[in-house]
Amino acid sequence: MKIGIVGATGYGGAELLRILQAHPEFSITSLYTSSQQGKNIDEHYAHLTGLFPQKLEEINPKKMAEETDLIFLATPSGISSKLAPELVEQGCSVIDLSGDFRIKNQMKYEQWYKKKAADRFWLEEAIYSLPELNREKVKGAKFISNPGCYPTATLLGLAPLVKKGLLTENSIIIDAKSGVSGAGQSASLATIYSELNENLKVYKVNQHQHIPEIEQMLESLGYVAPITFQTHLIPMTRGIMATIYGNIDTNITKEEIWDIYQQSYSDEPFIRLRKLGNFPTTKEVAGSNYCDIGLDFDERTSRVTIVSVIDNLMKGAASQAVQNANIMFGFDETLGLQFSPVYP
Amino acid sequence: MKIGIVGATGYGGAELLRILQAHPEFSITSLYTSSQQGKNIDEHYAHLTGLFPQKLEEINPKKMAEETDLIFLATPSGISSKLAPELVEQGCSVIDLSGDFRIKNQMKYEQWYKKKAADRFWLEEAIYSLPELNREKVKGAKFISNPGCYPTATLLGLAPLVKKGLLTENSIIIDAKSGVSGAGQSASLATIYSELNENLKVYKVNQHQHIPEIEQMLESLGYVAPITFQTHLIPMTRGIMATIYGNIDTNITKEEIWDIYQQSYSDEPFIRLRKLGNFPTTKEVAGSNYCDIGLDFDERTSRVTIVSVIDNLMKGAASQAVQNANIMFGFDETLGLQFSPVYP
Amino acid sequence: MKIGIVGATGYGGAELLRILQAHPEFSITSLYTSSQQGKNIDEHYAHLTGLFPQKLEEINPKKMAEETDLIFLATPSGISSKLAPELVEQGCSVIDLSGDFRIKNQMKYEQWYKKKAADRFWLEEAIYSLPELNREKVKGAKFISNPGCYPTATLLGLAPLVKKGLLTENSIIIDAKSGVSGAGQSASLATIYSELNENLKVYKVNQHQHIPEIEQMLESLGYVAPITFQTHLIPMTRGIMATIYGNIDTNITKEEIWDIYQQSYSDEPFIRLRKLGNFPTTKEVAGSNYCDIGLDFDERTSRVTIVSVIDNLMKGAASQAVQNANIMFGFDETLGLQFSPVYP
Amino acid sequence: MKIGIVGATGYGGAELLRILQAHPEFSITSLYTSSQQGKNIDEHYAHLTGLFPQKLEEINPKKMAEETDLIFLATPSGISSKLAPELVEQGCSVIDLSGDFRIKNQMKYEQWYKKKAADRFWLEEAIYSLPELNREKVKGAKFISNPGCYPTATLLGLAPLVKKGLLTENSIIIDAKSGVSGAGQSASLATIYSELNENLKVYKVNQHQHIPEIEQMLESLGYVAPITFQTHLIPMTRGIMATIYGNIDTNITKEEIWDIYQQSYSDEPFIRLRKLGNFPTTKEVAGSNYCDIGLDFDERTSRVTIVSVIDNLMKGAASQAVQNANIMFGFDETLGLQFSPVYP
Repeated sequence: MKIGIVGATGYGGAELLRILQAHPEFSITSLYTSSQQGKNIDEHYAHLTGLFPQKLEEINPKKMAEETDLIFLATPSGISSKLAPELVEQGCSVIDLSGDFRIKNQMKYEQWYKKKAADRFWLEEAIYSLPELNREKVKGAKFISNPGCYPTATLLGLAPLVKKGLLTENSIIIDAKSGVSGAGQSASLATIYSELNENLKVYKVNQHQHIPEIEQMLESLGYVAPITFQTHLIPMTRGIMATIYGNIDTNITKEEIWDIYQQSYSDEPFIRLRKLGNFPTTKEVAGSNYCDIGLDFDERTSRVTIVSVIDNLMKGAASQAVQNANIMFGFDETLGLQFSPVYP
Repeated sequence: MKIGIVGATGYGGAELLRILQAHPEFSITSLYTSSQQGKNIDEHYAHLTGLFPQKLEEINPKKMAEETDLIFLATPSGISSKLAPELVEQGCSVIDLSGDFRIKNQMKYEQWYKKKAADRFWLEEAIYSLPELNREKVKGAKFISNPGCYPTATLLGLAPLVKKGLLTENSIIIDAKSGVSGAGQSASLATIYSELNENLKVYKVNQHQHIPEIEQMLESLGYVAPITFQTHLIPMTRGIMATIYGNIDTNITKEEIWDIYQQSYSDEPFIRLRKLGNFPTTKEVAGSNYCDIGLDFDERTSRVTIVSVIDNLMKGAASQAVQNANIMFGFDETLGLQFSPVYP
Repeated sequence: MKIGIVGATGYGGAELLRILQAHPEFSITSLYTSSQQGKNIDEHYAHLTGLFPQKLEEINPKKMAEETDLIFLATPSGISSKLAPELVEQGCSVIDLSGDFRIKNQMKYEQWYKKKAADRFWLEEAIYSLPELNREKVKGAKFISNPGCYPTATLLGLAPLVKKGLLTENSIIIDAKSGVSGAGQSASLATIYSELNENLKVYKVNQHQHIPEIEQMLESLGYVAPITFQTHLIPMTRGIMATIYGNIDTNITKEEIWDIYQQSYSDEPFIRLRKLGNFPTTKEVAGSNYCDIGLDFDERTSRVTIVSVIDNLMKGAASQAVQNANIMFGFDETLGLQFSPVYP
Repeated sequence: MKIGIVGATGYGGAELLRILQAHPEFSITSLYTSSQQGKNIDEHYAHLTGLFPQKLEEINPKKMAEETDLIFLATPSGISSKLAPELVEQGCSVIDLSGDFRIKNQMKYEQWYKKKAADRFWLEEAIYSLPELNREKVKGAKFISNPGCYPTATLLGLAPLVKKGLLTENSIIIDAKSGVSGAGQSASLATIYSELNENLKVYKVNQHQHIPEIEQMLESLGYVAPITFQTHLIPMTRGIMATIYGNIDTNITKEEIWDIYQQSYSDEPFIRLRKLGNFPTTKEVAGSNYCDIGLDFDERTSRVTIVSVIDNLMKGAASQAVQNANIMFGFDETLGLQFSPVYP
C-alpha cells in the first residue's frame, strides 16, 4: 500500500517515517510539505541521512490522492480541517493526527482551540478511534481522527472503571505530565533548553484543549461530568504519565479493581497492566506502542490512583495512527508495531 | 555563634555549609560524622575545595555541646531520635532536619517510617516549626524539628484556605513532584543516572512517610480528614512542586481566593504569591529560601488548583533550618538568607 | 537459529533482546544469569513486561551448548575469559562483548585491565571483528571478540587516513565523550543522578583500558605510535562522540580528505559520511547501528578534526555483535539491523 | 557606588543582578534595555519576583552617565562597539562583557565575528582584563573589556606552561565543552530542549570567534602559533570544561608540571589547583567565581592534558566582570564574590 505523509518534518512525522520504513505492508511513497518543497527530508532531519530518497513535495490534494492509498496528516491543528476533506473527496483514505476532527461539537472546539471548527458534515464523517475503546468502527473506514496524546493515556487509564460506573460524579482529577516533544519542533523562548532543563512547569491550567476531548469520550462511556485536568512539562523529551484520581463510594478492594482492569485489557496486545504494587515509568514504554497501567486504592480516602504511561510520539501519535491504519485495511492490528521499548 | 553540623556529607548538609559560610552571625566551628572522621570535607565534596579547614570529627555529644552553641542534625531518620536528646541534655541547642521528631504520635511514626519512634517526652519537647505557620513558638526554643520538604511546599500551599475552613472534607489531593536530590547522596540501582534520566516515576504510592506529617499540621489548622498524597520523581536534581487540588462548595471567585492568599502572605519575606494566571516553576526558586505560589479556581468543577514550589534542599531543608535558627536566637528571620534564586 | 544470552540484565544485554526479538533468522531461546536464576527478565526490566516467557537459567556451559547455536556473552570483563573457551569447546559459537579477548598481548591486558588475561591459545582463537575494517575473517568463524564502544567510534573515524599513512607520527589525540550507560547498570556514588546531571566529568585520564585496543588495531593498519585518548562522561544516557585530532604534513585539502573517506566508506551500509561542513550529533544515531562521521581540515594548523558518533549500546555493543553474527553465519550483514535511529 | 546594567534580560545580566544584589559596595541603580522599557525585570525573569523595584529604562548614554558610576554592558556583540565609547566619553566607567573590544586587530575581529569592528582608538582604550593574568592594568581604569567564557577557562589552564615556554610550537589543541546557556536566552530550532537533550553536538568547527582572542593573549604570553580549538554543546545548562592538550619536548615529570601551576596560582583566590590524580567537574564550580584546574602528563606521548572548568555565566562572564569592577575601584578583589559553588 502506498503511503503519503504530510508534516514529516514534525516529531510525529519523524516517528511515522521510522515505523513505516519497517512496516511489511505499508510503503512510504511521498512526503508532502507546505514549506520545504524540493528538499530531501535528511536536510531537515540528519538522523534520516540516506534513508528516504524521495524529495519533499508540495501539497496538492488531487495529485496526492492519485499517488497514494493513505495519507497521514501530521500537521498542527487548523490545517487538516480543510485538507482532510479534500483528500477524502478525491478518494484517498486519511488518518488525521491533529486535533481538528476530534471534538464533534463545533462550539467546544472553537472555545478550547481558539480556531475555526471544521465543517459539521466532515466532523461526523471522521471516526475518532482509540482502538482499545472503539476499534469496531474503524475497519473499512476512510477517514480517521487519531486521538490526542494526553487523552490516549488518560482514557485508557479511566475506561474500565468508567464503564462499570464506579467513579463518583465530579471526582475525576488527572494530573498529567509530558515530555517536551509534545510541544513539537518549534522554536520559542519557552521551549529552549536552558529554560526547561532542571525545571518543572505547570501550563494551560484549566485551559488545555484536550479537556473536551477527554470529556466527550468519557460521556460516551457513561461518565457525564466535567473533569479537572492539569498539565505539566517534565524536563525530558518523550513520555506522558497521567496520574488519575477518582473516588469510589461503593465497598471495593484494590484486588477487585485490579480484576476489572485485567478483564478489560487481558486481550489487548498493547496494554500491559502491572501487578498490584508495581507502577510503570515513562521510559519503560519509550519508542513503543505500549500503554502501561498500574493502580492502587486507598481505603483511608476511598480514592483510586491510576498511573497510565505512554510514549507521546508513539501510542500518543504515530504508532497509534499506524495501529488505526492496520485496522482500517484489515491487517493484523499489531503489524509492524511489535517492537520492544528502547531502554535505557 | 558557634555552629556544628552532623551529616555535612549529605546534600542537606552541603547546603547548610554554603549558607552558613556566608551568614553574618553564625560561624561553622565543627563538622561531625559517623563514618569519615579525620577527613576534610573537600575529600567528599570537591566543590568545597579550600573552603573549610576543619577536619570531620567523630560524634561525641558531650564534646559537641562544649564546642558549639547550636547543632544542625542533617542525618537520616533513625539517628537523631537518640542523638538530639543527648545534645539538648548537654545544654546544646538543636535543629533536627530528619523526620524523627516531626510526628508527635509514636504509633503513626512507627507505622509510616517502619522505625522505632523517639521517646514521648522528647517528641513533645521538639517544636515542629514551619515558620510561616507557627513561628511564635520558636523564639527562645532549644530544640526544633525542621519540617520535611514535601510538607513545606504542601502546607504553605494549603494553609490560607484551610484556616478559612473553605475546603470540602476529604477533597484534598496533592500530586507532588520532586527532583532526585530528595533521595539523598546514596547509591542504589534505583537512583543511577541511566535509570532516571529521560524517565518519570511515581513512588511510594499511598505510602509516603510525609503523609502523617501533613495531616498532623492540617488538623492543627482545622482540616480533619485523610489526604491523598502521591509523589513523583522528576528527572532533575533540585526542586519540588506540589500541585494541590481541593473542592470549595461555597460560592467564591478566583479573585476572592487570591485575596485570601494575599492577606495571609503579604508580610512573609519568603513567600511570593504570583498574580492570577501566572504560575511558578521550580527553577524560579532554585538555590533560595523562597516558596512561590500560584493558583486558579475552575468554576466548572468548583475545584481550586494551587501550585507551590520550593527548592527541596533549601526551603525544604537547609535554608528553612537557618530561618528557624535565626528565629530561635532572636535575629532577623531573613539574616543570611536574602539571596536571589540561581537562574537559569 | 537458537540464540542464548549471558548477561541479559545488563544494558548491552537489554539491547540484544530488543534487536533479536525482531530478527528474522535468530530466535532467543535462553537467557542465562549468574545471580537471578528462576526469575523472569521482566522482574529486572519492566520495559520487557510480557515479551520473554523464558526464565533466567543458571550458567552451565554443557547445557548451554546443547540448547543453543550461538551465545552472546554480555558480561563484565573477567568472566568470559573462562566461560567463552568452555562454550566453544562444547561446540557452541560465541560472540563475546566483553574486553577479555580484545587485547592479544597478555601483558598489556593485565597492565590496563588490572585483571588476569585469558589463555594465550584462546586469545589467538578469538577473532576481533570490527566488520568495516576486517569482516573477511569473520565468515564461518566460531568465536568472535566484539570491539569496545570507544574503539569502534575511534577506529572508524581514523581508519581511512591511517590506511593511507597520512597522519604524522605521534599526532593522534582522541577526545572521547560518552553517555552514562557506558558505565553499565551498576550502583555507585559516582553514577547517581544527582552527581552526574548538569555536570561534566573527565575520567580515567591516560588510563582507559580501551587505549591498547585502539593502538593494537591502529598498528595493524600501519600507524605505530602511542595515542592520547581522554574520556569524558556526558550528562546523557546514550551516545559516544570521538573528536579526533591528527596532523597531516603533506599538502592536502579538506576536499581531498573527504574523498578518501568517501572511497573507503561508500559501500558500507552502516557508515554515513556527512558532507563537508556538516557534523553528526549523537542523537542522530541513537538506537541504531549507524556510525556517522564528519570532518574538517584546518590549513592554519595542518590539523584534521574528525567527528565520529555511535550509539554506545548499539554499534558500540549489541547491534555490532548482531552484525558480526550475521556475517558469521553467512546472512546479509544488515539483516535485522536496518532500523532508523530514534529521534528526537 | 551606583551601578547600571544594560542587557539585564540576558543570562549574563541575570547573574550580574544576583551577584550585585548582595555586593557590599555596589548598588544596582538602573537597568537599561533596548526593547522592554517600562517593564519590571520580574516580568521577564519570574525568579526575580519582588527583588528589583526599578523599571527597565531606555538606553540614553548621557542620562546613564549621570545616574551611575559604572555600567556593565551585557549585550550581544555589535552593540557595545558604539555604546561603550559614548558612555566613557560622558565620564562613566564601563565594563563590557561582549566580544566587541577583545580583539585588538580590527581585521581579525571582522574576519571571525563577521561584524564591523569598533573604532581603533577605543580598541586601544579598552583594557582586556583576565585578572589572574593581567590585573595590574585594571586599577583605576575606566573601560574594561571582559574576557570570553572559553578564553577564560582556556587561558587560565594554559598560562603557567606558556609563560615558561614549555609547550612545543603548534601543539596546542583545546577540546572545549559548554553548557547551553552560553548560547544565551534566544529562541532557535537549534537550541530547543528536544533537540539538545540527550544529545551531544560539535559546532563552529575551526570557526569559533574565541580563537583569535585566545591566540592574542597566548602571543602576549610568548606562544606564537595558531591553535586548534573545537567547541561542543553539552546537554546541561551551565559550565565550561576546556580539555587542553600540548606537547612538551623537554624532560619533565608530572610533579614538576604541577609545581609550576602551584607556583603560578597559590596566591590566587579564585583558582583551585587540584592534586595530581584529581580532576575537577563543571558542577564543582557552578554558581561561583572559581576556576578549578587538574592536569596529567603522559610520558608515553610527552603530552600534557590540562582540564580547566568554570561556570560560563560566572567566571566566564558576570562574576569575572564584578572581579574586574572590584579591582578598578580599589576594593578587595574578592569582595562580594566569596560564595561557595551550588552543589549538587
